[in-house]
Amino acid sequence: MSAPKKVVLAYSGGLDTSIILKWLQTEYGCEVVTFTADLGQGEELEPARKKAELMGIAPENIYIEDVREEFVRDFVFPMFRANALYEGQYLLGTSIARPLISKRLVEIAAETGADAVAHGATGKGNDQVRFELAAAALNPEIKVIAPWRLWDLTSRTKLLEFAEQNQIPIAKDKRGEAPFSVDANLLHTSSEGRVLENPAEEAPDYVLQRITRPEDAPDAPEMIEITFEKGDAVALNGEAMSPATILTRLNELGGKHGIGILDLVENRFVGMKSRGLYETPGGTILLEAHRGIEQITLDSGSGHLKDSIMPRYAELIYNGFWFSPEREMLQALIDKSQENVYGTVRLKLYKGSARTVARWSDRSLYSEKHVTFEEDFGAYDQKDAQGFIQLNALRLRLLAARKRRLG
Amino acid sequence: MSAPKKVVLAYSGGLDTSIILKWLQTEYGCEVVTFTADLGQGEELEPARKKAELMGIAPENIYIEDVREEFVRDFVFPMFRANALYEGQYLLGTSIARPLISKRLVEIAAETGADAVAHGATGKGNDQVRFELAAAALNPEIKVIAPWRLWDLTSRTKLLEFAEQNQIPIAKDKRGEAPFSVDANLLHTSSEGRVLENPAEEAPDYVLQRITRPEDAPDAPEMIEITFEKGDAVALNGEAMSPATILTRLNELGGKHGIGILDLVENRFVGMKSRGLYETPGGTILLEAHRGIEQITLDSGSGHLKDSIMPRYAELIYNGFWFSPEREMLQALIDKSQENVYGTVRLKLYKGSARTVARWSDRSLYSEKHVTFEEDFGAYDQKDAQGFIQLNALRLRLLAARKRRLG
Amino acid sequence: MSAPKKVVLAYSGGLDTSIILKWLQTEYGCEVVTFTADLGQGEELEPARKKAELMGIAPENIYIEDVREEFVRDFVFPMFRANALYEGQYLLGTSIARPLISKRLVEIAAETGADAVAHGATGKGNDQVRFELAAAALNPEIKVIAPWRLWDLTSRTKLLEFAEQNQIPIAKDKRGEAPFSVDANLLHTSSEGRVLENPAEEAPDYVLQRITRPEDAPDAPEMIEITFEKGDAVALNGEAMSPATILTRLNELGGKHGIGILDLVENRFVGMKSRGLYETPGGTILLEAHRGIEQITLDSGSGHLKDSIMPRYAELIYNGFWFSPEREMLQALIDKSQENVYGTVRLKLYKGSARTVARWSDRSLYSEKHVTFEEDFGAYDQKDAQGFIQLNALRLRLLAARKRRLG
Amino acid sequence: MSAPKKVVLAYSGGLDTSIILKWLQTEYGCEVVTFTADLGQGEELEPARKKAELMGIAPENIYIEDVREEFVRDFVFPMFRANALYEGQYLLGTSIARPLISKRLVEIAAETGADAVAHGATGKGNDQVRFELAAAALNPEIKVIAPWRLWDLTSRTKLLEFAEQNQIPIAKDKRGEAPFSVDANLLHTSSEGRVLENPAEEAPDYVLQRITRPEDAPDAPEMIEITFEKGDAVALNGEAMSPATILTRLNELGGKHGIGILDLVENRFVGMKSRGLYETPGGTILLEAHRGIEQITLDSGSGHLKDSIMPRYAELIYNGFWFSPEREMLQALIDKSQENVYGTVRLKLYKGSARTVARWSDRSLYSEKHVTFEEDFGAYDQKDAQGFIQLNALRLRLLAARKRRLG
Repeated sequence: MSAPKKVVLAYSGGLDTSIILKWLQTEYGCEVVTFTADLGQGEELEPARKKAELMGIAPENIYIEDVREEFVRDFVFPMFRANALYEGQYLLGTSIARPLISKRLVEIAAETGADAVAHGATGKGNDQVRFELAAAALNPEIKVIAPWRLWDLTSRTKLLEFAEQNQIPIAKDKRGEAPFSVDANLLHTSSEGRVLENPAEEAPDYVLQRITRPEDAPDAPEMIEITFEKGDAVALNGEAMSPATILTRLNELGGKHGIGILDLVENRFVGMKSRGLYETPGGTILLEAHRGIEQITLDSGSGHLKDSIMPRYAELIYNGFWFSPEREMLQALIDKSQENVYGTVRLKLYKGSARTVARWSDRSLYSEKHVTFEEDFGAYDQKDAQGFIQLNALRLRLLAARKRRLG
Repeated sequence: MSAPKKVVLAYSGGLDTSIILKWLQTEYGCEVVTFTADLGQGEELEPARKKAELMGIAPENIYIEDVREEFVRDFVFPMFRANALYEGQYLLGTSIARPLISKRLVEIAAETGADAVAHGATGKGNDQVRFELAAAALNPEIKVIAPWRLWDLTSRTKLLEFAEQNQIPIAKDKRGEAPFSVDANLLHTSSEGRVLENPAEEAPDYVLQRITRPEDAPDAPEMIEITFEKGDAVALNGEAMSPATILTRLNELGGKHGIGILDLVENRFVGMKSRGLYETPGGTILLEAHRGIEQITLDSGSGHLKDSIMPRYAELIYNGFWFSPEREMLQALIDKSQENVYGTVRLKLYKGSARTVARWSDRSLYSEKHVTFEEDFGAYDQKDAQGFIQLNALRLRLLAARKRRLG
Repeated sequence: MSAPKKVVLAYSGGLDTSIILKWLQTEYGCEVVTFTADLGQGEELEPARKKAELMGIAPENIYIEDVREEFVRDFVFPMFRANALYEGQYLLGTSIARPLISKRLVEIAAETGADAVAHGATGKGNDQVRFELAAAALNPEIKVIAPWRLWDLTSRTKLLEFAEQNQIPIAKDKRGEAPFSVDANLLHTSSEGRVLENPAEEAPDYVLQRITRPEDAPDAPEMIEITFEKGDAVALNGEAMSPATILTRLNELGGKHGIGILDLVENRFVGMKSRGLYETPGGTILLEAHRGIEQITLDSGSGHLKDSIMPRYAELIYNGFWFSPEREMLQALIDKSQENVYGTVRLKLYKGSARTVARWSDRSLYSEKHVTFEEDFGAYDQKDAQGFIQLNALRLRLLAARKRRLG
Repeated sequence: MSAPKKVVLAYSGGLDTSIILKWLQTEYGCEVVTFTADLGQGEELEPARKKAELMGIAPENIYIEDVREEFVRDFVFPMFRANALYEGQYLLGTSIARPLISKRLVEIAAETGADAVAHGATGKGNDQVRFELAAAALNPEIKVIAPWRLWDLTSRTKLLEFAEQNQIPIAKDKRGEAPFSVDANLLHTSSEGRVLENPAEEAPDYVLQRITRPEDAPDAPEMIEITFEKGDAVALNGEAMSPATILTRLNELGGKHGIGILDLVENRFVGMKSRGLYETPGGTILLEAHRGIEQITLDSGSGHLKDSIMPRYAELIYNGFWFSPEREMLQALIDKSQENVYGTVRLKLYKGSARTVARWSDRSLYSEKHVTFEEDFGAYDQKDAQGFIQLNALRLRLLAARKRRLG
């Protein structure tokens, strides 16, 4: 790969990406464009502008954007239509944000005539894969610079030295090692590394970033109602809201009630296991609610098919294949299933759990007339079950007869 | 089907199966053998013996058995190895008990020379299917009598009249309609019907049979440790226990802490939706713990394959195909995956939730040396990620290039 | 079910459906509407009109339609996009025609104010299921009359007696039993029953209806070229053709060259095995060609996903669930995959086989520059493979290390 | 990776692996052990011994082994139990041989105290992956040397120069470039590269290595009978044979009758497409026969489950994951299904195709009594189909009613 001439960097304004910014300038002598996104991580973005300017980035090369609505509408919600869980438990909070960042990096590269993009993910994790697969899928020619895989700043000491040599300001609390590493966006906060590295030891309480410990949550349950259209949440307690707004509100509710903490050892795409502490307050509520509304609006054929492809869909997102034809094929299948997923779910939030307690819809397939223990006036003829069972049993009988024959 | 000569009846001793017993006698003039099983439903069985005797059943034709160990060891545990959830949420508590009952009915028929078995499941539910498919799979010639699909006792009034006419004692509280219908065994209690029939209305608190409301659960969390061997729980807090004992103890713990309540609308195999309130205290803890130990002892290849076939496996059990070649094929796959699932999981139980907080195993695949944020001394070469990503990206690049070419 | 007042009958004009027509009239005293479709079965339809008139059907109640283009365009081609094979081998020729017939029956019932439809499929086969599931999916209220499951005309002798008593003309060659039973449409001809009932005996040559025995096919191979757009065949040897025309032409070619004979024992949905002799000349060529064009226009992600859901898709069609949400969901996935399936395949037809020998497309993903054994000028860096393999191997190494540790 | 001290090389005796042998000696100054396997590729092995001796390999370091029986018994036959086809068409002839070679390399390394193994696969293909994943799975510490990814002998000219400089004899016909590259073993011969690189051009006839052109095959069909036990072929025309013997005989038959030619563009694991011409004469017959015997001995539950996991199983083998837990899990599932796959299939071989024409087994599940068009004396009650269809239709009716309700 020849040296890049102009690089769009995913820039948070923090120490690490500031070091990368400088390293790109010194290593390649190239022009740098910074992209700082508000994905709902809960940090102010304007300081990033100042820092970029301090490091000599021209104002027109500083991109700061609020992408929260796009994030929830085009990434989070489509994923929740699938009830996606990686390895049975993980709501994919980090995975789903990466393709959006990559998409904007590639788009800004096109706008600014840059030939490369750069990111601050290390060589051990999944995020490098997600950034780079998305970039490749969106622009086959773009170069991707992953400084962590390239440079020799392989220890904290070396990084700090480099920062000092290059007049990069170091916040006091960044002098020492952080006790763990954090990633956050509107869907979740993940923590990993250092104090969390031993999966046999409990995560300390101080790791929690945005969820109240269940023990400290309110003693009274709270009931909420979420309304869905085409499988997406559109209203909370009867009030219509934009995608990002509804997720923000659910985050507040979940955080308050101690909902959405997951301590997980998972399998990374790059082959090793890692342990993370995930906080997904709103997402955990949303998954439960979405299942609740699907209970009455999806028939078994649709629901079981969705369930059967879900693990693959989740794995694709986890592994970084959001912008792949197979993810889009699965999405077409999933979206097709959501055409009648309309209605409202009532949930009870209480000290760590969100539980569906009622659901209704004018598109419900639930038929009290069929299921009732009372007189059903011919809606269902119990004698039909005889034939149903007989024919389902036929091959089992033939198998049993063979077994008997063979002795 | 010709009339049965001798029938083995799944007999609870309750009013409904007593009516069936009498009906079989009067309808077919046949000899009846009763089978009453202790599956952990929490009822005494000896009264069933007395009632059977009262109805003229010869002592040698009364079978009363404690099958709890067999139930947990040969049915519940194999199923939990798969992390089976029907429709994403249901732990299959009723489904998994039916094949065992059918198996004993068929075996007792062979021992007693009976040509038929009978059950008390209605024509609207899944249980009839489960009973009858299992029977067909185990004895291709056996007749199955399902009185609810045959007789004209189609209302409560008619049933009570029949009971009175036949001197079947009716407990006072059985005069009126029960407000809902209950099924219970060591794994779960399910409630459905009547006050639960409208899924838009919350289940009343009095429906709960064995789980404390989370609001009434202890204010202090409780930590427990479950140890696994080959994917099965073998010890609680370091104390070795038999399968049924460990499940019993987990039920007590879960019940106390409000764990395992599920309000679900599900799709029955016979084509309609039904709403149930399920209580699976021990099973809910067990699933979480099993996932916890698999996190460190299964590699991604095994885990993802298991995940992908799980919905089908759960559906088979739900639909009554326990004794089918495809369930056995899937079981062979699942059991193969459990060969190294050994170790211990610590969980925190608190007001409705059971959460893994630590896990360890001498068969762990977690490699701190690989994943560490610290110096890894060459365990993992970050530069390898470059090639890994490049080759994974190659087809995406070729796709992107085509897209560009087409304009 | 109350008696029908007006019935739309799938009417071939043959003896069996004529008997059904008369039976409906006499059994229910109801008005009958006949529907006779040209699906490419190769029989003239006008005689059916005459026969219907003779049996008193009013001219406005006689529907005779050429549905070949709809059949191929809306049923056969969508199915071929999936490379659907039931049980690995069967091209679903009968299965795919039934939903179209049912759809027209239900539509004609709506047009004519009929409250029921009727078909001539027996109670042992799959076709009854296909007809009736499709009808239920299209009109939840429609009644379906399946005379073979209802009447007492259970032997050939009784049928002929009924025909004679009712002045239904019996062709001379219909007096005796046919040596086997035939179903045909533009996609295939199936033969089953009687001389074919023993799967251990070879099918006699005279069973073949439209394919030349390979031994009698031309001694010279013939090369053809099929062109695809969006996964559908649109031209043969460079000549654009309608769907039904191209399938007709492929049938002629396949028939001439002995292509598309399948002798199969399959599993019916109703639980038993049956043996059929299928002739699918054009379809066999089309499947091979479609695979050929997908080879260069689908990437591995798309292709492997399609392959993995294909058996389920084929099973749905076989079982009669064409008009089901899950089939439509899978179709959405499949159709999404076909967006770039454009190009031309050359095949060699010779004495029973059709083999792809070349394929080209301006949407090809084949990259000679990457794959070449020659100098590739940096298109592909072989060193990348090192990292790719290392990371794919990592979990296998961790597994092997565990094995070693355990001794 | 530190330099290897002793390397076991997969050595064919040909020019390329002789160059590798010399390169290992000169590059690392290490001891080399050669392993030459008879996998049925049809070449004499003793010349390899001489060449190895000439290059200074000590006699005790020269391993020459006939592994044909192990190859067919432990690799080919287990794979055929699954009816494995990669991308719908490829019988995996090359893929299945690699793990066996790797296994022996690793075992010989253990016996001889070698710390590394080496292979002659290039950096563009799948074989490097297969060799190296297998090695990693069998010995987590072993080093793997892949000279083609390491050296600078990047052109034919350089290779020949190196050979000449090192006194490696060059056969006359190896001076020029071969027009295509060949791999062979008892299951298949594959050809690729150069004259085959353009998938739009037909493969020249001279590429065929062991199959007669169908046009040149005998004019008379030949009937054969293959007998199976537990899913494996055990006899041909009634004569019991060892696995390798039966495959050898089927290869002769298939080769003679022009059976098993496949011209394919496939997706390599490393991300690119390649075109190959595969000849699998015996394997093609065997697949057809195995399907034939499964038709009557597997029930639909087993067969459909097998079909649904087959693509994944085939992909695993293609990608080199033979020695992986997930392949072993799938094998457990598949082997379970084969317990009753016993019986005999008659096939007709003729000018390019092998077609099942009859099959029989004392474990057959085919029930003429059920399927017959004749009187079945109550084996099957056609009225049962009514209930079967009603319940299968119920959810479709509820869906249709909703659609109607919504207008």
